Order: sequence, then C-alpha cells, then structure tokens
Amino acid sequence: MTSSATTTLTQVSTTKSHGGWQHVYRHESMVLGCMMNFGLFLPPQAKSCPCPVLYWLSGLTCTEQNFITKGGAQEQAAKAGLIVVAPDTSPRGEQVPDNEAYDLGQGAGFYLNATQPPWSEHFRMYDYITSELPTLVESSFPVMENRRSIFGHSMGGHGALTIALNNPTRYRSVSAFSPIVAPSIVPWGKKAFAAYLGEDQQAWQAHDATCLVKRSTLPGTILIDQGNADDFLAEQLKCELFEQACSEAGQALELRMQKGYDHSYYFIASFMADHVSHHAEALCD
Amino acid sequence: MTSSATTTLTQVSTTKSHGGWQHVYRHESMVLGCMMNFGLFLPPQAKSCPCPVLYWLSGLTCTEQNFITKGGAQEQAAKAGLIVVAPDTSPRGEQVPDNEAYDLGQGAGFYLNATQPPWSEHFRMYDYITSELPTLVESSFPVMENRRSIFGHSMGGHGALTIALNNPTRYRSVSAFSPIVAPSIVPWGKKAFAAYLGEDQQAWQAHDATCLVKRSTLPGTILIDQGNADDFLAEQLKCELFEQACSEAGQALELRMQKGYDHSYYFIASFMADHVSHHAEALCD
Repeated sequence: MTSSATTTLTQVSTTKSHGGWQHVYRHESMVLGCMMNFGLFLPPQAKSCPCPVLYWLSGLTCTEQNFITKGGAQEQAAKAGLIVVAPDTSPRGEQVPDNEAYDLGQGAGFYLNATQPPWSEHFRMYDYITSELPTLVESSFPVMENRRSIFGHSMGGHGALTIALNNPTRYRSVSAFSPIVAPSIVPWGKKAFAAYLGEDQQAWQAHDATCLVKRSTLPGTILIDQGNADDFLAEQLKCELFEQACSEAGQALELRMQKGYDHSYYFIASFMADHVSHHAEALCD
Repeated sequence: MTSSATTTLTQVSTTKSHGGWQHVYRHESMVLGCMMNFGLFLPPQAKSCPCPVLYWLSGLTCTEQNFITKGGAQEQAAKAGLIVVAPDTSPRGEQVPDNEAYDLGQGAGFYLNATQPPWSEHFRMYDYITSELPTLVESSFPVMENRRSIFGHSMGGHGALTIALNNPTRYRSVSAFSPIVAPSIVPWGKKAFAAYLGEDQQAWQAHDATCLVKRSTLPGTILIDQGNADDFLAEQLKCELFEQACSEAGQALELRMQKGYDHSYYFIASFMADHVSHHAEALCD
C-alpha cells in the first residue's frame, strides 16, 4: 500500500483478529531519520466506511509488538469500529544514538523533540506522533476526518496526556494506564529530560502533564487507571500530583485506583475494554 | 505454598488479572526428572469455594508463557469461575535430551511417554499431564473434585484430543484450536513418533486422535476451531480426516472453519471466549 505522500508503507505482517485485521507496517520516517514499525488494527467496519482512529503509546522498552500481542484491544475495537495505531517508542537503528540504560535512548523516546546532542537529530517523537504518523495513517487508510483519540501506558501515558494537553482540539478523548504524570520531578523523567532537553527546567514544563493541566484544560473527562500494587507508583508515577492539579484547574478526571494490580500488561488487559469504550463514546457520537 | 505431597511449589510470579490472579509456579517433576513451570489462573471465586479446573496444552516451541500472556483466557475464566492450568510443552534443562529442530526434543513433547533412547528417561509428558500435574494442582489449590476439562492448540490440540479419548471419563469436555489430528501420517507427527515411540507404527495409534475416535467415543461434543488461512492446514493438520472419523464413529463434533484466520495466538484469542464457555457449560452444570 502506498500513501498519497512519497513515503512507502511496507506490510510486515497481517493477521486476522476478532473479525478485523492486525497489521504491522514499516516505513521510512523523515522526522526521525530511520525506519519505523507501527501496528495498525483495522476493524471489519473499515471495509465499507471510514472509521475513527485511536492512537496507543507504549511504555519504556516496548516496541509496537507489546500492545498488539498482549493488550487485548482488538475485541473491543472490532465491536466499536475503531482503527487502533500503535507505534514504536523511539527511533531505532545503528545510526541512532542509544544508551545502555533501559530508560534512555532507544525504547525511551518520551514523546518529545530532543534539543540536546547527540539526541536532537533523531529523537523527535513529538513531531512523529502528532504530525508525520497521523498524516501517513490518515492518507493511507479509511480514517474519518478529525476523529482521533489517544491513550497509553506509563511513559506512553505521559505521552498521551502531554500530547493531548498541548493539542486540546486535536483529540476527542484521552486516557492512560499508570502514567508518568510529573516527569519533571521523578527519576525517570528527570534523567530523560536532562539528557533530551538540557538542564533548563523551564523547557521541561511543556512535557509535564501536571504543569500543563494548570495552564489549559481539556473539554472531556480524562480516564486514568492506576494499580495500587504498582512497584513504580510511589517513586515514578505519583498520580496524586496530577489529581491535585486537575482539581485545582477544574479538569474533569476519573482516576481509578485498582486494588492489587501492578504495572504489567495483565493490568492493562484487565481494563482495556473500559478504555476502548471511553474513546468509542467520544469518537462515535 | 506446599502441597500435601512432598513436592514443593515455588511461586515464580503472581499478577492480578481480571479480578483473579495469574500465577506461575515451579516444581521438581518426579515423572520428567527436571524442574517444570506451569501457569495457573485462579479466578476470584476460588477465594471462597472450590472451582473446576481447565487444562490448556500449548503447541510446538511454547513454554507456559505464550498462553498466559497472549491467549486472553483470563477474562472469561474469571467470569465463569474456572481455574486454568497451562503447563510447559516438554521436560527442560541441560540434563534433558534435545534436538536442534524446533519440532523434536525440548518444546516438542507431543504429550506421550517416549519409549526410545535417548528420550525415554525424561519425555513422559502423558504421565505428567494425566497424573503428576493434576495430583499436584488438585492437592494444592481449591479444585472441585472430578471437574476437569482440557483444551489446547496445534500439538497441544493433539494432546487434548488424545488424552481425553484415552481417558473418556476423566474430562468433562474437550476442545482444540488447529489440532494435529492425524500425527501418524503427517510430517510433524511421523518425525516425533518415530523418534519417541520407534518405527512400530502400531504403537503410534494410541496417540493419534483419528485412530482413537474409531475405537471409543466421548459423551460430549468436541469443539474444534480451525483457520482456513492456516499455513499448516493442508500438510500437518488435516482436520477433515478427524471430521470423517468422527462421522463414522458417531462422535459429536463441532468443527468450525474460520475464514481468513491463521495459526497464531491472534486466532486463538479471537475465539477463546467461545472455548471457555464450552468448557464452563460442561464444568458448571
């Protein structure tokens, strides 16, 4: 399949799932300067008419595979008639800078545009997710105009929240599983932001959901599920800070603390149907 | 947790999933002469009362992980109140014979007791699945007496069918995804049976579902789902041979050819809810 732009989409795999098709595509990203994979679930309804599109952003260390094999979104997406796009979490390849740590470099893009060497040439995930990827998807598949929503997990929950808050008319709904809501003050975020954005913490605020929601809110209710047995909750996730900021800013938030659940895809799959329904309601009205 | 037998169960992991708990346990198998892992999903109902148990047998190359991470059975099992046990597919370890091929040796136990060297010492998966594992599970967890069912995929579908047909009063129901139904005459089965059971093909018939059903039938309806876009269908699976044998023997069979589906876990997950319901109906009556 070829898009109307010059980029060529190569189909890596295609598998029937719940009446629809789970595809993986590969393309050359101009923004990131490397080849990129993304998962795309096409529901059965897409055969006959355009469908809304829901973007999923994964967490640290993930590729496009984790969500499509373990997230369990296909069943509900097939019922609701949603296209679901799941990109990789960073630029990839030998020419792309990396770090031996799991939380910096490849697999840890943090959905921002890096300004610091050696990262700034390739690590432009904010532009990739908000511009290049949707342009490609929306010109290549039967997507309904202006019917986009976004959700994600952990680092990808951070990505979903910050991208939606920075583009308040672009997405009809946003939700997250165990998101990093205050990256400016937790170890994962401080390490990544210092490397990608430099030491000037003023620049960090544009990618910190707890800072952003104080500046401008979203019209709909943000849905967040957070396991209370998540090992990262106290040190890295701190959802109570976002809850407090939403309360002060007047942002509607449904924060559900899920008893006994951890940070894994078992947790994500357990509440996936609720999240897809949350987005379907906003996208299919 | 310690069973009433001398075997000690070590908990490898435990994760909340759909209101229940997805565990992985490790134990020393006397039958197989090695350490073995198995997955065990405990539904929320098991907190207050004994539950029926459903055994899943995986296919070539799988461990206990494939089914528990990608099969999607937890949601329905939690609703129906079923314990689901998913063992590994062969003995494992440095002291266990292996072969460089993916379809012989470790990861390819074929759910039989090998009689030929070097396999006969460890490759006793039939005894493990029908005796040692259920004894361990049923003495260690809140399992209802005599409420067992069995299902599986590919080599594990072969295992489920042959084990149920060889033990017609032991399991309340049986089902399979894309099973190897005639191993005596297809390449995967001929290779494994020759190695494990020797060249006397008389011995093979006790582990060939198409042969077994002609000798004795099961009281309930066998449910089989088979994708018609499965690359292994024509050469290795040949479900039409089992369909013909069931018809001749008077065995009730619901064989569903699923259009466009392949051999993957995307296929399995697409119809998992139907299979769990099939077993729940037999187990919870």
